Amino acid sequence: MQLFFHSDLSKNQQQADFSKIESQHIVKVLRKQVGDEIEVTNGQGDWFLCKITMAQTKRCQIEVLAHKYYPKNHQYYLHMLVAPTKSNDRFEWFLEKATEIGVDEITPILTENSERKHIKIERYQKIILSAMKQSLQFHLPKLNDLTAFENILSIEADQKWIAHCYEDENRTELFRSVNPKQNYLLCIGPEGDFSLDEVKLALQHNFEAVSLGKNRLRTETAAISACHSIAIKNSNLDA
Amino acid sequence: MQLFFHSDLSKNQQQADFSKIESQHIVKVLRKQVGDEIEVTNGQGDWFLCKITMAQTKRCQIEVLAHKYYPKNHQYYLHMLVAPTKSNDRFEWFLEKATEIGVDEITPILTENSERKHIKIERYQKIILSAMKQSLQFHLPKLNDLTAFENILSIEADQKWIAHCYEDENRTELFRSVNPKQNYLLCIGPEGDFSLDEVKLALQHNFEAVSLGKNRLRTETAAISACHSIAIKNSNLDA
Repeated sequence: MQLFFHSDLSKNQQQADFSKIESQHIVKVLRKQVGDEIEVTNGQGDWFLCKITMAQTKRCQIEVLAHKYYPKNHQYYLHMLVAPTKSNDRFEWFLEKATEIGVDEITPILTENSERKHIKIERYQKIILSAMKQSLQFHLPKLNDLTAFENILSIEADQKWIAHCYEDENRTELFRSVNPKQNYLLCIGPEGDFSLDEVKLALQHNFEAVSLGKNRLRTETAAISACHSIAIKNSNLDA
Repeated sequence: MQLFFHSDLSKNQQQADFSKIESQHIVKVLRKQVGDEIEVTNGQGDWFLCKITMAQTKRCQIEVLAHKYYPKNHQYYLHMLVAPTKSNDRFEWFLEKATEIGVDEITPILTENSERKHIKIERYQKIILSAMKQSLQFHLPKLNDLTAFENILSIEADQKWIAHCYEDENRTELFRSVNPKQNYLLCIGPEGDFSLDEVKLALQHNFEAVSLGKNRLRTETAAISACHSIAIKNSNLDA
């Protein structure tokens, strides 16, 4: 099964046009023709069965045959705030894997030790979209622009965590700290970790310090492990 | 801290020579000089503090100043058997991440639906070694050569799992199935999944069928998630 994306398609609509880029993909690359049925999502939980009614390279038009709403596969809201890695590839891996495993919102953050100060947000958006379609999900994680660490401190959430690698007896292991079915916010630092000042600042803003196990993990591995810890804590409520 | 590798260094040794390649790396790339102290592991749990006594481009000699044995960070033995992905990058990413999170033995497997029938074992070995050093571990996971699925069925382990995506009410979620501190063997299939015959064959050989959650995961994401599920089940014994 292949899934297509149309951000504006809503459940009461009976027909729609794809964007030029998506039309080209459907008609030119995949050689879909008038009469072919395709499955489409708007990334907001809606799935549509559609029939192609016009198949021009720059204009692919569809008629909606059926609609179904799919709730998210997970019953929590996870906002990951991660410092982009020096190597862009590694951050892109995180975006793809977090989307596959389950994440609702992603904010790349700029911290004291960040080496990467610019991001390619359009490219990131495409990676997330493609991972959503590939993993057959109907909810597109929200991607925010690069944000300074100071500006994320007052975002509200039920549980707010900062993962750091300083020796600190007060750090809980993330998996233990997760209360199921909550609104979570989790910060992961860059290669050089958060500064001690940043950690202090976060603690003053009701963040809890967490660790992600005994091994020293790279930024992107830490971020993916964290998404997965939250996913399994929520899907094994009696474990 | 940077960690160097010398496979033959043993705890009673007082001096040693590095290989040509490692010597070049230490002396030419990192510009280490006579008298510099470096930390070395043999990948078998031994850590050595050493002093460089000769620093030639093709011959770096060291004297051992101190030794300590580090047990593994985890108290289980995990053997991952994974079908290499079509894209080699994705499999290499699995090797790196599994080493960071915790794995003891890796066997690339050849299955009915495998599209990749050759592997670059020397390159894989380098990736695992580099991930071990980078994550400051002292135990090098064992890497086996590409092995036909039929030939892995009778390997012994306390818990043997096959992860597949067929609808089957008897599949347990892996996290639930893990009994702590055991010897585990886990098979992950290729992009097209294991064949039904392969699944049947595994079940006949005392494998248990498991799922890895509700989302459809790529091969390498499934493999990493599995390593992580086993790690957190073992580090949260009372959870």
